Amino acid sequence: MRIMGIDPGLTRCGIAVIEGPKAGLPGSIGSPKPTFVAADVLRTHPNKDLEFRLAEMSAQLNEWVERYRPEILLVERVFAQHNVSTVMTTAQVAGLAMVAAASRGIPVGQHTPSEVKAAVTGYGDAPKEQVQHMVQRILALPKLSQPADAADALALAICHSWRQGSAVATDTSIQTTAQQRWAAAERAARRTGYRAGRGRMGKKSS
Amino acid sequence: MRIMGIDPGLTRCGIAVIEGPKAGLPGSIGSPKPTFVAADVLRTHPNKDLEFRLAEMSAQLNEWVERYRPEILLVERVFAQHNVSTVMTTAQVAGLAMVAAASRGIPVGQHTPSEVKAAVTGYGDAPKEQVQHMVQRILALPKLSQPADAADALALAICHSWRQGSAVATDTSIQTTAQQRWAAAERAARRTGYRAGRGRMGKKSS
Repeated sequence: MRIMGIDPGLTRCGIAVIEGPKAGLPGSIGSPKPTFVAADVLRTHPNKDLEFRLAEMSAQLNEWVERYRPEILLVERVFAQHNVSTVMTTAQVAGLAMVAAASRGIPVGQHTPSEVKAAVTGYGDAPKEQVQHMVQRILALPKLSQPADAADALALAICHSWRQGSAVATDTSIQTTAQQRWAAAERAARRTGYRAGRGRMGKKSS
Repeated sequence: MRIMGIDPGLTRCGIAVIEGPKAGLPGSIGSPKPTFVAADVLRTHPNKDLEFRLAEMSAQLNEWVERYRPEILLVERVFAQHNVSTVMTTAQVAGLAMVAAASRGIPVGQHTPSEVKAAVTGYGDAPKEQVQHMVQRILALPKLSQPADAADALALAICHSWRQGSAVATDTSIQTTAQQRWAAAERAARRTGYRAGRGRMGKKSS
């Protein structure tokens, strides 16, 4: 299953593609490990006017979606209460990524930064370096993903790949330590009634 | 000069087109009054997932820009500190409108709600009904623009048409009362060093 991850931003937008195990396929058949396909950082110049930066970013996002044709696109969830100075443009880039997918019938999901960090490192508030190191290990990359935005996009795609798998891969013997921690964190989250799903942002908005 | 105004929103997005006097043409040659071309409210269904609502809204915005080919597109400026529950999606729709214009080489401007209200009514905190009534009078419409979102989009376009004109139409005898008030408010704003221009949101964002 081809998964695209987007860490939205107007100056630097992390983008990544991995192949995860097919949804619904037990983890014990074949390898449950996701494999690296591509990762990069899309950029626009801070000195240009906002509308042209957004148009350039939209063109680049559409090009990636067109080239890699993911089966699902994941966007890091943006929170209105954080980073007020950049939250608007970050939300706008996230919106452009969603449109690039949805206009081609590709489903979209969202995960929070803490969900992603917990998935790949076992800790929701892991530092960026730890995420980069775990991404390198999980995908068996020859070196660290640079810059961190590309690693974040890879981590987002990995996080989704494991969430897909977690519903069927209940045999803990095939789970990595990080996967086990993630499964435990997910069970804990379920108990406290916190649901992290897709498209929820749109439900209460106008 | 054909001007398009957008009052962004995901459930209801006001959109309007007017013909204003050509930029740089003295107001005394021909009529300085803007004329009505079209106005409507674009909608998406609150029960659908966010990504499909954004994609539908984007398609409708592109259709309008394609059909009316404005020389400039104005978007009501969105503030991060207001209406936290809807600000993210409002910013996303504003971003989609900017991309619909900028990807066709059409310049984009932004005005704040207070600038628009001051332009058409003379008061920055005028109620919606007063804006609707003034829009009806200025464009000599047979009835009120309904719903208010369409009137807001018309008011935004009128505001820009007058700002364009104000640089050359210094002969106050041809200005309406509202135009005179707007010119005075603009002079006052200039004195206090407040610059309301285009694309500024992008300058400090990442």
